[in-house]
Amino acid sequence: MTPSPHRLDIAEVRLTPILVADPPLLNTQGVHQPYTPRLIVEVVTESGATGVGETYGDTKYLDIAQSLAGALIGRPVTDLNGLPALAAEVCGDSSAATAAAAVDTGGLRGAQTADKLRLSVLSGFEVACLDAWGKDTGLPVHALLGGRVRDRVEYSAYLFYRWAEHPGGRGERDDWGAALDPAGVVAQARRLADTHGFRSFKLKGGVFAPDQEVAAIRALADAFPGRPLRLDPNGAWSVATSLEVADALRDVLEYLEDPASGTARMAEVASATDLPLATNMCVTTFDEIAEAVTRGAVQIVLSDHHYWGGLRNTRELAAVCRTFGIGLSMHSNTHLGISLAAMTHVAATVPDLHHACDSHYPWQTEDVLTERLAFRDGRMDVSDAPGLGVELDRDRLAALHRRWLADDGALRDRDDAAAMRLADPDWVTPAVPRW
Amino acid sequence: MTPSPHRLDIAEVRLTPILVADPPLLNTQGVHQPYTPRLIVEVVTESGATGVGETYGDTKYLDIAQSLAGALIGRPVTDLNGLPALAAEVCGDSSAATAAAAVDTGGLRGAQTADKLRLSVLSGFEVACLDAWGKDTGLPVHALLGGRVRDRVEYSAYLFYRWAEHPGGRGERDDWGAALDPAGVVAQARRLADTHGFRSFKLKGGVFAPDQEVAAIRALADAFPGRPLRLDPNGAWSVATSLEVADALRDVLEYLEDPASGTARMAEVASATDLPLATNMCVTTFDEIAEAVTRGAVQIVLSDHHYWGGLRNTRELAAVCRTFGIGLSMHSNTHLGISLAAMTHVAATVPDLHHACDSHYPWQTEDVLTERLAFRDGRMDVSDAPGLGVELDRDRLAALHRRWLADDGALRDRDDAAAMRLADPDWVTPAVPRW
Repeated sequence: MTPSPHRLDIAEVRLTPILVADPPLLNTQGVHQPYTPRLIVEVVTESGATGVGETYGDTKYLDIAQSLAGALIGRPVTDLNGLPALAAEVCGDSSAATAAAAVDTGGLRGAQTADKLRLSVLSGFEVACLDAWGKDTGLPVHALLGGRVRDRVEYSAYLFYRWAEHPGGRGERDDWGAALDPAGVVAQARRLADTHGFRSFKLKGGVFAPDQEVAAIRALADAFPGRPLRLDPNGAWSVATSLEVADALRDVLEYLEDPASGTARMAEVASATDLPLATNMCVTTFDEIAEAVTRGAVQIVLSDHHYWGGLRNTRELAAVCRTFGIGLSMHSNTHLGISLAAMTHVAATVPDLHHACDSHYPWQTEDVLTERLAFRDGRMDVSDAPGLGVELDRDRLAALHRRWLADDGALRDRDDAAAMRLADPDWVTPAVPRW
Repeated sequence: MTPSPHRLDIAEVRLTPILVADPPLLNTQGVHQPYTPRLIVEVVTESGATGVGETYGDTKYLDIAQSLAGALIGRPVTDLNGLPALAAEVCGDSSAATAAAAVDTGGLRGAQTADKLRLSVLSGFEVACLDAWGKDTGLPVHALLGGRVRDRVEYSAYLFYRWAEHPGGRGERDDWGAALDPAGVVAQARRLADTHGFRSFKLKGGVFAPDQEVAAIRALADAFPGRPLRLDPNGAWSVATSLEVADALRDVLEYLEDPASGTARMAEVASATDLPLATNMCVTTFDEIAEAVTRGAVQIVLSDHHYWGGLRNTRELAAVCRTFGIGLSMHSNTHLGISLAAMTHVAATVPDLHHACDSHYPWQTEDVLTERLAFRDGRMDVSDAPGLGVELDRDRLAALHRRWLADDGALRDRDDAAAMRLADPDWVTPAVPRW
């Protein structure tokens, strides 16, 4: 008997903001706060299937999510192409000019616009809809995206300069200790490689003067000869500094990530080095691609399904990149197992994914799943179970939500500069180029 | 209970080549033969759902389809991303160099390569898989593509210079009479508009000297003031002629389609006129997009889901076009209701489809469906029934297959020049530019 499509209509949407432990990881803007906000999205179909998604949990994302949640009731989980227009409508941002206007000019994600905020929120709903659809019909999410072309997805070790603990001993403790010099970075890399089997390494830079970061990469190259290495200062460098680093590391880097800020500077760097440049800052929306391609500013786009509006948009980005000979890899921000599973499903469906994906996941010791996901030989198995193949642990979710409820608001919006000021009261977000 | 995905595995594939009646429609290479070959693809799942697809039926397509059919048994109908690699493997064309080498340099579709042939064959299988998947799960094909963003898709009237009957009185008769001058073209347009409600008009040109075709478009503009008009000489003109026509018709044409052959000539035309240029000849694969975009050669790509490898690739093409500010419309070749339904489903899911799609369908009086599809106000309703929403008429299919079996091979490969030689024994396919 043909089931009625009505069974796939959305009967309920649940939004649960949480605060998740985050180590004191350093970047050019400051340091991670002891807890970071995430939003867990649940979509329940008329048939009783519950799909889960995950996205940013900061207040401005929550506001959009709450507007959207009500509007989704009664719509089928398959109705994904209509989500952007619906989100614009419920947010009252249906004019293209309003949507594209920057609402925040700084940040590690490049300029923020209402469009980009909405796409990030949408991504959580899209993943939840795909998960529910898959659970209802017995299909893994990758099948809903046209099927996997590989059975494992490779990830890289994401290295951070870090302190042993948060200023004032706030937050959760871990046993990683500090990593503030080449030896510390190598030790961290060794432990991540030993534990998870990672074969490639990315260092979040822009924290120390470029020569110190060059020394750290050199130390990694000595410790792991021939392994793919990457350095990402989040656009902290001038064009001249970018070229000096490129020259110093061109024999060992797989690519240099966002050495300078903005497409114009990236294009200038790219024109003077043969080291490939990657970005998740100057190309984070479809609108930004044409200029970057025309100017030859980037050779690799680091997609992030949250930025790009979901798994299906990520596949469209992959098609655009393929068409223009641009490489594709995947960016990762502080996230839990739901988003790691989502990344793995979409990555498994993209034919030409030639670089290991980044993942913050090893730094997230807390999760909302009944079973923590595990890397094996630096890779994640692609699940063939229905939906994403993960299950929500309601007790853990409730505990992390209670933490969010108990917060006075200080941690409900990520602010790496504020966290840094607890250690250095004079800290201000550095202007770029910083070096 | 969660159904087992095994139910979606392919249990059987049926290929039925047919010959379909085609009127004596003229183009720059010759005239349509009285019957044209099509291939009907049926994919049956373990659960018993049968999906249908349709593609070119010429011998070289049939050969690929037969190789592919056997390799599909046991694979899930959802496994679509893996089809290109599978097709290359079974065809022994896994080397990129072989795949991209031209196997035929002429034709109305631009240069043909093994890659393009395989994609056209794949499209029939992809549509059949989507139809079977949709029928099994109760979802329309548009839902499997992320859902429709409109409930009707607009089509244009496809006008042809034509004879009243085929040379020697072969084939089926119709009551359209000849259309060989402006008055004949206008009469044809009037009948198509009255019968189907079409509001825009495309004339297949490249048949007569450009001034005669300019006169036909002028006559259409007088008869249908303000309506969108298009002219497509299939690349028959020089750059100079293209610019003369563009200048003569720029106040009445929506776009000029493939005035000159090849990206270089199209770019030269585009640089000297502000009339938008459309193509389904110089951009027919993803590999051809970058050069056309870089050189500004085309403003509108006329996608054809057969050329591009299916409905999902068509959506990826739409994403590429959107990203680079290129318009999208849809091309149509001689096809039956299955392909019209498939076009309608994918067109319904593309947000920025700003032009009416072409359709040959009014010229195809024979079909293999139990119920003929109907245009209403020049539009096709988007079906919400499971799969494509069409049903195969096995008696009609068998009758058209018997016609194919009875043919001595003369009509099993489309050859417009051979058909023309029956009227004009000295006819050779004109070199380009013809004018």
